[in-house]
Amino acid sequence: MKDLQVYKKDLDYSYALGAFGTFELLASHPELITQVIVHSEYKDKNRLQAACNKTAVSLVQNDRIFKRLSQKENCLVIAQFLKYACQLSDTKPHVVLVNPSDMGNLGTIIRTLVGIGIVDLAIITPAADYWNPKVIRASMGAIFRLHIETFASFAEYQKRNSSHIIYPFMLDGDIQLGINSIKHGKPYSLVFGNEATGLPEHFRDLGLSVQIPQSDMVDSLNLAVSVGIGAFWFANN
Amino acid sequence: MKDLQVYKKDLDYSYALGAFGTFELLASHPELITQVIVHSEYKDKNRLQAACNKTAVSLVQNDRIFKRLSQKENCLVIAQFLKYACQLSDTKPHVVLVNPSDMGNLGTIIRTLVGIGIVDLAIITPAADYWNPKVIRASMGAIFRLHIETFASFAEYQKRNSSHIIYPFMLDGDIQLGINSIKHGKPYSLVFGNEATGLPEHFRDLGLSVQIPQSDMVDSLNLAVSVGIGAFWFANN
Repeated sequence: MKDLQVYKKDLDYSYALGAFGTFELLASHPELITQVIVHSEYKDKNRLQAACNKTAVSLVQNDRIFKRLSQKENCLVIAQFLKYACQLSDTKPHVVLVNPSDMGNLGTIIRTLVGIGIVDLAIITPAADYWNPKVIRASMGAIFRLHIETFASFAEYQKRNSSHIIYPFMLDGDIQLGINSIKHGKPYSLVFGNEATGLPEHFRDLGLSVQIPQSDMVDSLNLAVSVGIGAFWFANN
Repeated sequence: MKDLQVYKKDLDYSYALGAFGTFELLASHPELITQVIVHSEYKDKNRLQAACNKTAVSLVQNDRIFKRLSQKENCLVIAQFLKYACQLSDTKPHVVLVNPSDMGNLGTIIRTLVGIGIVDLAIITPAADYWNPKVIRASMGAIFRLHIETFASFAEYQKRNSSHIIYPFMLDGDIQLGINSIKHGKPYSLVFGNEATGLPEHFRDLGLSVQIPQSDMVDSLNLAVSVGIGAFWFANN
């Protein structure tokens, strides 16, 4: 127990903070859990103990550790787990986030994509660290249900996923979501830029650029909302 | 200047924190601005002065006040303005939020709705205070572009807006967005519940309940994302 460090990007493990994420992890990847730590004030200890027993995960009680690891979040259960690598599917749709920087947004996007049924997410670095407990928490544990792969550039992503048709989302994209019909070939890649800057202009030439029509009374939509609208539309049209 | 108080719900004024929201307010409701306060480190003072001059708004410099009013946000411009009341349109679509509690979500929803072109928002109380500077900031100033009216109950909302067709969004709603076609009569009301609890079951009987189809691998979608997906779909179908 004394080895548990405050989360940093270069650790080979991370934490799911809170019972919800811990149960998600126990359900999806119990083999990656090093241990589950529970606070004495946690009410649903029997259910947690049963889930740990079923998957042969060790459960320990330690109140002191919460103050140090919980990142100011109010939580009574923590799962320590080993980070893992994924490879994206060749045949399923992808979402590609180019340099996402906000951890809350990233977690919300992950939760949204799993809800919509898109389970392959590419992240072009530099980007927020998706294993940060803040992202995991914002994803409501959904991060354990999708495959994330990082790429050092969009060119590298394309080289490795060349059968995907690219749809860059841009404020002045050539086709209008919801107005122009989009007969998308599958598999498709929906590409979204950074929260503050969007996609650079040269992305227009990489595929069929899409805009979410919007009033000129706002500067842009929130990134997580844009991804939700775009991904839902593609998944259901 | 000494009268400026830290924001509280019962004040008859509030603050737009940051240059973006201040410029939005100068463009939309300059008559409501009591004063604009600028920090000595703000770079774009000439443009701000010009906008204030054009609308006869007083601009004062005072660095000390920022620490007290800025709510830990990093900002160099603050507009103090008088709160105002609105009445919803009889003929335009509405979004109705029942007991929204998260200020960031509420601001993001406001920004999203203005972007999509829905500018009438009903809020059923108890709810987060939409004039809180945190909401205004999260809305990126879009709050000044839409009409918000609060109601003490949904029944009161319905009584005053009886020509609107009600679409309650529920996890197990009767029609599926994107799958079943929805030939909506206008004007419509899209109704969303609280972040944690959703809508109570009796809302099903108030109209045509809608679900956003989603994987059972997530508990629900984030409220702002759900509103974005639902409102965009209705506005473009």
